[in-house]
Order: sequence, then structure tokens, then C-alpha cells
Amino acid sequence: MQPPADGERPAEAGPSPFERDFLPASEEGARHLWYRRIFHHDAPDERNFDLVLILVILASVVVVMLDSVPAVKARWHAWLYALEWLFTLAFAFEYAVRLWVVKRPLRYATSFFGVIDLLAILPTFLSLLFPASASFTVIRALRLLRVFRVLKLVEYSSEAGVLIQALLRSRRKIFVFIATLLTIVVIFGALMYVVEGPEHGFTSIPTGMYWAIVTVGTVGFGDVAPATGFGRFITSVLIVIGYSIIAVPTGIYTAELARSLQPRRRQVRCTECGLPDHEADAWHCRKCGRALAPEGTD
Amino acid sequence: MQPPADGERPAEAGPSPFERDFLPASEEGARHLWYRRIFHHDAPDERNFDLVLILVILASVVVVMLDSVPAVKARWHAWLYALEWLFTLAFAFEYAVRLWVVKRPLRYATSFFGVIDLLAILPTFLSLLFPASASFTVIRALRLLRVFRVLKLVEYSSEAGVLIQALLRSRRKIFVFIATLLTIVVIFGALMYVVEGPEHGFTSIPTGMYWAIVTVGTVGFGDVAPATGFGRFITSVLIVIGYSIIAVPTGIYTAELARSLQPRRRQVRCTECGLPDHEADAWHCRKCGRALAPEGTD
Amino acid sequence: MQPPADGERPAEAGPSPFERDFLPASEEGARHLWYRRIFHHDAPDERNFDLVLILVILASVVVVMLDSVPAVKARWHAWLYALEWLFTLAFAFEYAVRLWVVKRPLRYATSFFGVIDLLAILPTFLSLLFPASASFTVIRALRLLRVFRVLKLVEYSSEAGVLIQALLRSRRKIFVFIATLLTIVVIFGALMYVVEGPEHGFTSIPTGMYWAIVTVGTVGFGDVAPATGFGRFITSVLIVIGYSIIAVPTGIYTAELARSLQPRRRQVRCTECGLPDHEADAWHCRKCGRALAPEGTD
Amino acid sequence: MQPPADGERPAEAGPSPFERDFLPASEEGARHLWYRRIFHHDAPDERNFDLVLILVILASVVVVMLDSVPAVKARWHAWLYALEWLFTLAFAFEYAVRLWVVKRPLRYATSFFGVIDLLAILPTFLSLLFPASASFTVIRALRLLRVFRVLKLVEYSSEAGVLIQALLRSRRKIFVFIATLLTIVVIFGALMYVVEGPEHGFTSIPTGMYWAIVTVGTVGFGDVAPATGFGRFITSVLIVIGYSIIAVPTGIYTAELARSLQPRRRQVRCTECGLPDHEADAWHCRKCGRALAPEGTD
Repeated sequence: MQPPADGERPAEAGPSPFERDFLPASEEGARHLWYRRIFHHDAPDERNFDLVLILVILASVVVVMLDSVPAVKARWHAWLYALEWLFTLAFAFEYAVRLWVVKRPLRYATSFFGVIDLLAILPTFLSLLFPASASFTVIRALRLLRVFRVLKLVEYSSEAGVLIQALLRSRRKIFVFIATLLTIVVIFGALMYVVEGPEHGFTSIPTGMYWAIVTVGTVGFGDVAPATGFGRFITSVLIVIGYSIIAVPTGIYTAELARSLQPRRRQVRCTECGLPDHEADAWHCRKCGRALAPEGTD
Repeated sequence: MQPPADGERPAEAGPSPFERDFLPASEEGARHLWYRRIFHHDAPDERNFDLVLILVILASVVVVMLDSVPAVKARWHAWLYALEWLFTLAFAFEYAVRLWVVKRPLRYATSFFGVIDLLAILPTFLSLLFPASASFTVIRALRLLRVFRVLKLVEYSSEAGVLIQALLRSRRKIFVFIATLLTIVVIFGALMYVVEGPEHGFTSIPTGMYWAIVTVGTVGFGDVAPATGFGRFITSVLIVIGYSIIAVPTGIYTAELARSLQPRRRQVRCTECGLPDHEADAWHCRKCGRALAPEGTD
Repeated sequence: MQPPADGERPAEAGPSPFERDFLPASEEGARHLWYRRIFHHDAPDERNFDLVLILVILASVVVVMLDSVPAVKARWHAWLYALEWLFTLAFAFEYAVRLWVVKRPLRYATSFFGVIDLLAILPTFLSLLFPASASFTVIRALRLLRVFRVLKLVEYSSEAGVLIQALLRSRRKIFVFIATLLTIVVIFGALMYVVEGPEHGFTSIPTGMYWAIVTVGTVGFGDVAPATGFGRFITSVLIVIGYSIIAVPTGIYTAELARSLQPRRRQVRCTECGLPDHEADAWHCRKCGRALAPEGTD
Repeated sequence: MQPPADGERPAEAGPSPFERDFLPASEEGARHLWYRRIFHHDAPDERNFDLVLILVILASVVVVMLDSVPAVKARWHAWLYALEWLFTLAFAFEYAVRLWVVKRPLRYATSFFGVIDLLAILPTFLSLLFPASASFTVIRALRLLRVFRVLKLVEYSSEAGVLIQALLRSRRKIFVFIATLLTIVVIFGALMYVVEGPEHGFTSIPTGMYWAIVTVGTVGFGDVAPATGFGRFITSVLIVIGYSIIAVPTGIYTAELARSLQPRRRQVRCTECGLPDHEADAWHCRKCGRALAPEGTD
């Protein structure tokens, strides 16, 4: 039992972590066939369904993008509008099928991806009632999130798993870090608002905070920049601070991730004191000294 | 007792590391009740006090921010001014209580957070005597620091502890790094001042150093930028240098943090098979099962 | 034979990983001599050939660069043009020789570096037929890639090997990361397109995405920047996100690389004391001195 | 023998790594007294000398800076000029003393810090002969390097040692990385020169390369920025590339540094086969099985 090549777990068959708790409404017939197509990802036809779905989703997002480019819109709007409707109906059909094949439709509809699915079709229909409002565009872009349901399922789920576990394990540290960062941002934002003042673009403390975030995050648009000598000195201090603490989230995350990738320990329960996990090379229980079951047998 | 999941220590009851050395003035009665409310953080009413305090602090900072936005100020200044006074009085009351319940008020008043507490109320009162000067705004923003006293106490203290320990252990390395960085900044600042000269915005060596920090920190506002070919070449060299050494603080910190996160090992040699290092909680040698010398004796 | 100092493999003699499968056309005579010169890198004359080749390649790229600088071109174009032809003929000769000495010329011509070699000479000849088109300039710049064939062979091959292995092992994680990143980019791009709108430079969703990449990648040109308060708030959120996830690729890669750099261990259980893991070059158990099973048998 | 707390080696007494090979000219008398003051760093008076020296060096650099600020120069030039001469004479005296007390003055004068010492005094004297040329300013700024001689000696030498060792061990990997980076820069520079062309500021391939370095290094001044849609697409690709490979130097360096910080192995030479280094818990030589000298005795 070598340590796993790189944190890979066997790609779980069946529903994804997100949808595991959706049971099929029936065990055979068309309903179950579609259930498998939609929620499973192993048999050829199931995979093909996923592939088509991803392509349609990406295409629909591309359409939304193109429709926002003036030059393209002027020329092709009619076609894009037609495609938009085509995709919307396809998604509507898929949504209906999902509700149909699942045992508890309501529970599905209220799940994270259930809401995303609804948002994918809603705007186009609403645009019939109301004059197409810009905000619909954003909601349409959210369709992209649907790709993740499919991605998450198959071979990438384990990879994502490792990354997310590490993130979760370090969430508290990152919270402490963000809190510190925001405090620095508020104080330097107020400082620059006072030192530089409106005449140099620091029109308010929130503007100063925006500048501080842009600076400490090493983005530096330059739309707001210090002009006085003292302001530039404060900026230098802020940059050195930012430069030093950019190490912190990387450090936190890398250290956690390195732990995730470390060869896992031996999971054998001591027959006497029941201690469940031991070092990879342990022969005796470190608590009670009782000999452990040999390597092969666990 | 497994090795700590991720560097967590049990959330210490009672005063925080910052205030541990403030003893209550009396052991019972209202005075002690308030002492507990303010300095302890475990019982429900103590936690509620913390929660209210954090909210009030955040609210007071938001008021300071809003009051700096011209549009808002024009419209709501009166209300914001009233709120400002409300918060100030609340903080003044809290400050008075703190002095009242602590055994050595002077020592508290001169402690780090004691000063912060005073600064939180001073500006508003001073603004009565003097025409409100801008610098008061910054001091008001410092109120945000007060949040940390509360944050630090409870479950985040251990997380922060790990991060800070790692920072402290790597402080010398980081000092060496900062010294090197500043030297690079001075030399490149002088170089660009000579190469580009005032006509391209490098009006002095300090300005050149400001530019060098902005560049090596990968912020790059663009308010000062090289215009000559040679100046751009020097810039490219500086960027490659900055790009290479940005690895250093991250490397330092990550390596230290990884060490902090490793479960402590016990350095005791097994008297039978001589295996020298064991898990922190081992009682028997994991190889031969022989009992190890008790914790204290190694 | 210590475990490799830092992941170094002995510099392989003979053809590089890229060209290993090109066999010489003949085993002696001028043809083989040239085969050795070109494809081997150990004997002095072979190394000299490499050195000259690298210098010629670099020189030819410098010529392309200089010819693009108006001032230089105005003055020296004739000379640069002559040099360009000189280098082209040299490369053409080398290309011919390579085809001549290799057993399967076609296979070589269709290999990665075979194509690069052809691209190195094609533009100059084509520029005789067609009016010199700008796109040729880019193709000429590709000549630089030819340096890598020589670099890769000798002592750096092992270094590059370690770096590339680590990249390959983390490719899936990095794919997941890039996918997440692009989703964030699309959503924030659409968001800013709607919030800021064309009047602030966000003329379309693709433009918004360009801005989002420039921002989340902490580049921040500032050619497109938020002007409204809400837009700046969204920007701040995006920056904090980018600031937090910049840790992810570094974390992934560092963790993998650290694994690559660890000296390989031998997983063989000592028949006497049962110590399970030993250094790669161990012949005896470091605990009890008992001889270990030979390499092959574990 | 625990692993060192954090890579610390005992602060070496006497001359620094840089000056170790400078022997005193005489073993007693004023000459040796000054030798000790200048080259040793342990006795109180030796430390005081270092302290004064550092302060004088910093002061002299500050003077150079101030003299470059027009406003200050206009007002205080006379004073600054006087101070400049004061410091120069002080350095000249120190330089003379160093030559006087060292056994082989020539060897010292030609050492790295010997040259720096000369450069620290030369410009001021030369400015008497020639009209003060700007380039002197840069040379004066180099004085700052002299601080490192003093810094390096004492407690920071070991820290710097660890950092530098790690850098040296990873120099080849970093070379491979820089080579790859520069190739990317050249190709993208040429690409943008062709795509965007002079009308958008990409006036030549070198300019394009400058832009590419500024972009891939995530600095992004914005003085040169893509304007066409295709140019922005290329930029996005370049940024994603830069964003992914910024992980590489950090990864390389962190991994190396982590190795530096790892508990060191046992340095005991096997009495039979002479293998010099073993794992910390080794009892027998892993090559020949001969028992090693017990822990205490190495």
C-alpha cells in the first residue's frame, strides 16, 4: 500500500457530492434511464450527455458575450437572439426532466444547482414581460457555473477535493489574515484621505480604501495615485507591508496542501486499546504496545 | 489526545494574552460582574457583551467613513454627527468602567489597548475645543484596532498564534530580506534618477526610490514610468530581480509555517530497539512495543 | 553514490529526449561525423558546434530585434538585411545536413524541432516572393526556441526534468484552478460590463473579461478602470479573491516540487528488525545491520 | 543533538566570510588594536565601531538623497556639500587605516569590499577635477553596500547563509526558469509588435519585450497597453501564463529552503567503508552493516 500518487481518490460512480442525496423517482423505465443519463457519469451514453451539456452551456455563454459586442450585435443580433431562445428551451427541457426524474423535485429545485438551473432559463422568459434589462446579462453569465456540476463529478472531483479540503482546513487562518488585511486597508485608506486629500483623487475614505486594496494587492491601476512626497512615503510603507504579507496566504495554503499530499498513515485499529491510526511503519500500538495486524491484512 | 488538528490550542478562558495581567479590583459584586463581562469571554453574557462591542465599533468606523463621502455628508451630516457623539459617549462609559473594575487602573491606561481606548474617545471631545482638524479622522479610524482585542481572545487566538509564531521565528530572515530589498531600491532609484532625469518624472532620488518600490513590489501605478530605452532596460532588470526575490519571503514564511504545523514528535530513544523519535503521545515503541520513558524524563 | 544532490540525473550522452529516436543514417564517414556533431553533445568538437549554434541563433534573433527599431533600421537596414541572409543560409545549410545525416529524414522534418528548423529559414525565402509581411517577424522570433534543443541536452536537462515532472504531476490541479479562475473572470467581466457600462471603458463583456484577467492577475494596467463607487467595491472584492487564490497555484506547485526533491526511499522491510523504509542506496538495515534484499527483488 | 532551532549557526567570531583571509599586519600595538576594531565584531569597542560606521554610512547616503531634492538643494546645498566632504574624509581615513593594518594591502584593495570602499570616496575627489557629473550620484549610492559588510558579520550571517545556500542550490533551476521566461518575453514581444504596431505604442520589438516583462511580472505600468481586441486576447493569455509560472520560482525556492531547514543528518564516518553521513536514527552503516559510533561521541 504505497501512498496515493497524488492525493487521488477513485472517481466515485453515481451522483456527485452535490447531488448524492437525490434519489431516482423510479428504478426502471424511461424515467430511470434519464435519471442515469443526467445524474450518473460512467456509461458511454451518460458521458456523452455530459459532453453535449458542457458544449451547449459554453456555447450559450459565448452567445451572451458576442451579443454584448456592439459591432457583432449590430450585424448578427437576430441570429444570436434565435440561438439564445434555442438554448433557453433546451435548458428548460433539461430542467423539466430533472424535476421529473428526481424523487423529491422540491428538494432538488431548492438545492444550489437547482437554483442555478432555474436562473439559466428565467432571464430569457422574463425579458418577454419586461423590457430586456441589463441585469439579465449577468444572470445569463451565471450559466457557466453549471459546467462545474459536470466537471466536479468525474476524474477531477478528487483533485478539486484535495484543493478544497486544504482551503477548508486553512479557512480560519485565512479569516484572521483577511481581517488583518482589511484593518490595514481601512487605516491606510483614512490616512491617505487625510494626507493626499480630494485634490489628488482621494475624494473620500472609501476611495482611499479602494486605493489601499488596489495597492496592497499589488494591482496598482494608477487611476488613483499619491502625488505628495509624504503620501508616496506612506505608499512605500504600505507596499512593503503588502509585499511581506502576500507570503502569508501562500504560506498557509502551501503548508496545508503539503500536509494533504503527505503519505497517509496506517489505518489499523489496535485490537487492545482500539487506537485507530498509526505511523506507516508501526508494528506495535504506540499506546498499549500490543502488536498490530501485519501490513497486508488491513 | 491526537496531535493538534491544525495547530489549535484550547481557547484560553479569561483575559486575553493582551490583558492577562490585569487583575480584578474586587472578587464579587457589580464591579466583578463587569470585570467578567469585559475581560472574560466564555459565559453567554460575556460573549454577548463582546458581540455588542464589536458591532458598535464597526458601526462607529462606518460612520467615520460615511462622513467623509461628500454626497453623504451634505445630506446626513447632522445624523452622523449625532451618532458620532452617541458612540463616543458609549466608548467613554466603557473606558470609565474598565478603569473602575481593574485593580491597577494606571497600568491598564498605559497598556497598548488602554491607549487605543483613549484614542477612540479623545478626538470627538477635542473637536469641541479646536476646529475639527482632519487628523482626527485618522485617529477615529484607529478604533478598528479595538476589534482585535475581542477577536484575539476567542477561538481565533490559536490560529493567530501559529501565524505570529511563524512570523517571529522568521523575523531575522525577513529582516535580512527587507535590508537587501531596500538596498536594491536605493541603488535603482539613484540609477533611474540619473538615467531618466526630472523630464520623465524622476524628479529626485526619493522619487526614484518610490518608483523602484512600486516596481519591485509589482504594483506599477504607472504615474512614474521610464521613457528612454535604457531606462526601460533597467526597469526590465529590476522587474526580473523583483520577480525572482518575491519568492524569498514566501519561501521563508512557508517553510517556517510548515514546521509549525507538523505534529510535535517526542525525542526519546527506545531502550530495546533504539528507535529515536516517536509521536508526541506515544507510550510504547511502535517497533518493539517496549514501554518508553515517561514524558517528563526525556 | 549518495542520493542525487538535488534531483540531478546524469547528463545523458547522445541525442536529447527530443531527438533520441533519430538514428544515424550511417555508422562511419563524414555523414556519421556530422551526425555526432549535431546530435551528440559530449566530445569537444560536439560541444563547440553547440556553442556556435547557440551564438548564431541568438545573433539572428538580435538582428530581427534591431531591424524593428526605426532609428536603427533607417541607418543599418542594408547591413541587417545582409546578416539576415547570412544567418538564413547558415540555418538552411544546417537543416540540409540534418536531413542528410538522419536515417529517416521525413520523420525528422515532421518532428517538433524539425518544424521549428524549417520555420527558421522559410520567412526570409518567402519574403522574396511576397512583399515582406510583418507576420514573418514573429516567425523569425520563433528561432529562439531552437536554443532549447541545445540547452535541454546538457547539464540542464535534469533540472528542467524535475520542474516539468512537477508541472505534469500537478497539471490536473492546475486545470481545475484555471477553470475556476476563468469562471470568476467571466462572471466579474459581465458584472462590470453591466455596472460600469461602455461610458467607463467596459464596452463589452470580452472587454470586461480582459479587465478582470488584468485585475485578478494583479497586473492592473489601468487602461480600463472602474469609476463608480459600486464598480470599485466589486473591484475590491475581485482583488481580495485574486489575492487569496494566487496562493493556490504556488501551493500546488511547491508541494509537488518538494515531493520531487525528496531523495527516493526504498520500501523494503528488514527481515530481522522489520524497519520498512531505507535510503535508496542502502544495502544493510540501518538499525540492525542485517543485509537487505537486493534492489530488484522488492 | 537536536536539529538547529532555525538554521542558526553560532555567530562566528573574528573576520567575516568576506574578510576572513585578511590577516593582521602585526599582533600588538595600535595597528592590531585598529585591526581588531575594524575586522572583529565581538568586544564592546569593536561593536561600537561597527555601530558608528553603519550610522555614518546611512547618514552619508541620506545626504546624497537630500541633495537630489530640488527644494532641499536650493536651501541647504552648502551644508550638504560640507557634510559630503566630512563623510568623504572620514571614509578616506577609514580606508587608509584598513590598508595600514592589513597584512596584504593590495589584496584587500582588490577585494569586493575594498573596491566598494574606494568607490565610496572617489567621486567626491574626482568632482574637484571634473564638473560634477550626474553619474557620481549613483556611485555614491553604492556606499549603502558597505553596510552589508558589517551586517553580514554578526548574528545575521547565519540567516543570510541559509537564504543564500538555498539560492545557490536552486540557481540552475532558476536559470532554466529565467531562460524560459525570456523566451516567452521575446516571442510575445514580437507578437504584440506585429499585432498592435507602433500606433498603439509598440514602436519596436524591444518595446514589445519591455511591455511583455512588465506584464508577465504583473507590474503593469499601463504606459504601453493593448488597444485592439486581438491584442487584449494575447495579453490575457500572457497574464494567465505569467500567473501560472510565478509559482515556479517560489516553488523552487521554498522547496530548497524547506530542505535547508530540515533536521540535519548524522555526520559520523563509518569505520569500515567510510560512508560519512547517515540518517539521524542510524545505528549501523547502511552500506556495510558495521555498527556506528554511538550518538554522543560524534
